[in-house]
Amino acid sequence: ELGSFTKDIGKVEPDYIRSFQFEDKLIPSTWVVVRIDGCHFHRFSEAHEFVKPNDEQAINLMNTCAVAVLKEFHDLVFSYGVSDEYSFVLKKDSQFCQRQASEMVSVLVSFFTSMYVMKWKDFFPQKELKYPPCFDGRAVCYPSYEILRDYLSWRQVDCHINNQYNTCFWELVKSGKTKTEAQNALKGTQTGDKEKLLRQFGIEYNELPVMFRRGSSAFWGTTRIDKNGECNGNSGKRVVVQHCNIIEPSFWDALPTILSG
Amino acid sequence: ELGSFTKDIGKVEPDYIRSFQFEDKLIPSTWVVVRIDGCHFHRFSEAHEFVKPNDEQAINLMNTCAVAVLKEFHDLVFSYGVSDEYSFVLKKDSQFCQRQASEMVSVLVSFFTSMYVMKWKDFFPQKELKYPPCFDGRAVCYPSYEILRDYLSWRQVDCHINNQYNTCFWELVKSGKTKTEAQNALKGTQTGDKEKLLRQFGIEYNELPVMFRRGSSAFWGTTRIDKNGECNGNSGKRVVVQHCNIIEPSFWDALPTILSG
Amino acid sequence: ELGSFTKDIGKVEPDYIRSFQFEDKLIPSTWVVVRIDGCHFHRFSEAHEFVKPNDEQAINLMNTCAVAVLKEFHDLVFSYGVSDEYSFVLKKDSQFCQRQASEMVSVLVSFFTSMYVMKWKDFFPQKELKYPPCFDGRAVCYPSYEILRDYLSWRQVDCHINNQYNTCFWELVKSGKTKTEAQNALKGTQTGDKEKLLRQFGIEYNELPVMFRRGSSAFWGTTRIDKNGECNGNSGKRVVVQHCNIIEPSFWDALPTILSG
Amino acid sequence: ELGSFTKDIGKVEPDYIRSFQFEDKLIPSTWVVVRIDGCHFHRFSEAHEFVKPNDEQAINLMNTCAVAVLKEFHDLVFSYGVSDEYSFVLKKDSQFCQRQASEMVSVLVSFFTSMYVMKWKDFFPQKELKYPPCFDGRAVCYPSYEILRDYLSWRQVDCHINNQYNTCFWELVKSGKTKTEAQNALKGTQTGDKEKLLRQFGIEYNELPVMFRRGSSAFWGTTRIDKNGECNGNSGKRVVVQHCNIIEPSFWDALPTILSG
Repeated sequence: ELGSFTKDIGKVEPDYIRSFQFEDKLIPSTWVVVRIDGCHFHRFSEAHEFVKPNDEQAINLMNTCAVAVLKEFHDLVFSYGVSDEYSFVLKKDSQFCQRQASEMVSVLVSFFTSMYVMKWKDFFPQKELKYPPCFDGRAVCYPSYEILRDYLSWRQVDCHINNQYNTCFWELVKSGKTKTEAQNALKGTQTGDKEKLLRQFGIEYNELPVMFRRGSSAFWGTTRIDKNGECNGNSGKRVVVQHCNIIEPSFWDALPTILSG
Repeated sequence: ELGSFTKDIGKVEPDYIRSFQFEDKLIPSTWVVVRIDGCHFHRFSEAHEFVKPNDEQAINLMNTCAVAVLKEFHDLVFSYGVSDEYSFVLKKDSQFCQRQASEMVSVLVSFFTSMYVMKWKDFFPQKELKYPPCFDGRAVCYPSYEILRDYLSWRQVDCHINNQYNTCFWELVKSGKTKTEAQNALKGTQTGDKEKLLRQFGIEYNELPVMFRRGSSAFWGTTRIDKNGECNGNSGKRVVVQHCNIIEPSFWDALPTILSG
Repeated sequence: ELGSFTKDIGKVEPDYIRSFQFEDKLIPSTWVVVRIDGCHFHRFSEAHEFVKPNDEQAINLMNTCAVAVLKEFHDLVFSYGVSDEYSFVLKKDSQFCQRQASEMVSVLVSFFTSMYVMKWKDFFPQKELKYPPCFDGRAVCYPSYEILRDYLSWRQVDCHINNQYNTCFWELVKSGKTKTEAQNALKGTQTGDKEKLLRQFGIEYNELPVMFRRGSSAFWGTTRIDKNGECNGNSGKRVVVQHCNIIEPSFWDALPTILSG
Repeated sequence: ELGSFTKDIGKVEPDYIRSFQFEDKLIPSTWVVVRIDGCHFHRFSEAHEFVKPNDEQAINLMNTCAVAVLKEFHDLVFSYGVSDEYSFVLKKDSQFCQRQASEMVSVLVSFFTSMYVMKWKDFFPQKELKYPPCFDGRAVCYPSYEILRDYLSWRQVDCHINNQYNTCFWELVKSGKTKTEAQNALKGTQTGDKEKLLRQFGIEYNELPVMFRRGSSAFWGTTRIDKNGECNGNSGKRVVVQHCNIIEPSFWDALPTILSG
């Protein structure tokens, strides 16, 4: 058999076969964002009985995975997550995977997924994983700091809109409405209408947990200031998870080195 | 706060931000191969004390993941794996992920990784995962059946060359040579030389397990013929793992529907 | 000043600047078609008073340019043109411009344009070029001979549909209708309706010049058979322009070497 | 025949054929530079007996074409040319050709070429075009004003280096050396060495025409200052050709609106 293999070796031209590979290099000196999204997580969250509209443990698991990704891949300078999605920002001049899009995306998605399965038991000790969770990913380049900030603002605005809608939706369902009735009741409502609706259920939207309303930012922080304005004593460099308003310039002004790139 | 968010919503222009997304659509009517590779698996295999040169359980785990991938994603028509890599072939006219490369690659890598972590305990009941395993991936298009076959042949030839080299290398190391001495001893040797060397260690290369010498093919088989030429009774459609010579046309002639796609 | 330039030289990092260049390599072993289209040729044809619906001299000029392109770039194996567009087919394994799309397209468009201006006087001795004619171009890969043939058929079907429509339209306009009236009169008409309409103007569509009805194919022909089935005596290899039905297999069967590539 | 065509129409599926077209959209909000280069202009310049090392009329023709390009395509905000190349800068948010690279490049190359042939006689009244001149083109994105400036500086540094080399080379050839001898004589020489060499031929490099030493910039200027520092009275908006040092910030400071985007 070796003989026949030896003969077969001669037939194969690796250079020709390799010539079909193509570059998908992202333009240099731009902010690359790799966004990871859960595949069919609607179904996944039902199969694993996530609390609606927000499952705190599921979000904590996502945040834990994001922190691990930031610790593993040092070219990441910021990340923002909400629900089953997480956006990772690479520093502007990163040469991670030689900026080949497929490789960058696949490595980050794979590591994130690996962590998600490994850490599942820590967050859901009573629940077995019924089937493998799966994420997709994509890379996008943003040529300036301003547009990158616009991207992040867009994600946080989406978080707010979706969270307010979902909170209303599930309150209506819990109150006895069908899902279709709940959808119809919300059709065309504005932010103010939804606030009023929630108050009828005794919910003051702005008092809901900030993690649900604002999503989570994970990034390398050198110090952390507590609610009383005191340094929390941890001056070492570590990845922190916060739930700030990342639309307002003040967040970025206070942490100028995050995107100094 | 809602108020300020409401104001912020107006600042964000989703269409503008989305305009930075770009298509990476693969050319239609070509065979797409997504190849998954372990990241830093040299280190991973040492940390988890894989048997050298081939760890049967580690390969069985890879094959189990590949089978799960084929069962999950029905556009996959064939797969071939060796060591820490696995190639998945999509049918020629697949519209999986609308043929967007990053999405296709990330979904397959993520699912494979998820399975790898979930099934780890089944194959290594005595070993804890010390850190998250990670795979990268890339997609390549092959415009004809012939070139696709050349690609698969290339991977199997590589399997053979690497396996023969590694078998010699580890025999030399077990016999007391340092790794550097073993490398030097093998420099410039041909297939025939390596066969002779192995015989000195009492090893007949062609009698080594066929899974190590030929790698593994996972695909949908409708029936399976046993060693005596008899049907094994399972005529149902299921994913089989075989260790065939996929370079020779006879394999493909016998299973013409695999790539008829 | 040289001094300051010398200083400036040091500031420039060519490798960094070159790193922004990107590959746009077309997949190997596929049929590349570069299609050239006149930019705003509606306006150009009016400014230069082209005969409507078809200006024989304008088409002859296009064909002359195509012939020159085929003579200059030997990787082209076939071309088909109609109105102000021309499609050039490169042989499947062409390495023209290392298959970089922008370079391939720009070179062919530039040469074609150059020829168009140079040869203008030969076809329009009484007319000055009022402003520079301009063409755009794009490259598309077709992975198989069958799909390439489908592409060419599509262009010829388009030629037929457009020509029949335009012939009707201009007859109606010549008969005194406004352009809007002519458009409305043709709305929803089928091929048969248009044939009848033309007969009212004394025109038998199938007797119109074949160049208008079928477009033009320019390619390397070794011999040419005249209407009586006789060889025209020119057995030398040269680029010929014909007006054949390129949808029917018989054309390709008779000239099997054209796309043997 | 119409009958058979009617039948053939049914076989063609335009949507399927169009699906092979692919996007090559350049990333938004970046400076796109389309650089045009003469194909085989070494040969072209010999065939048309261009003066060496610089043919003033050939450069004037290039500049005239560039001015016409700027007048025709209003998204161009700056251009710089030297020898047989010209770089065109599009404004950062240009939607020219929907930012499709092949189309942008082909249109600009085609228009430039068209103009080159049309204007040839104005600059070379005694010389017939012996064959069609041809240019290639490519597009590159620069994500910031600084990198765009670096690109332009790189081209001007190249102009200086090449011009000084060529001036020396042709002086040596005119003095009786063979081309090979001239090349050898210049091997390893620095800027200072070349200046000295030229002085031996009675040439003060810095007194050579500024157009040869610095190349040409064509751009929309609102006013023009003459040698005496006076406004030339033409305050209208028109395309000017200047031979400035575009590496120094002072040029850009004086004309802040050029790249204001």
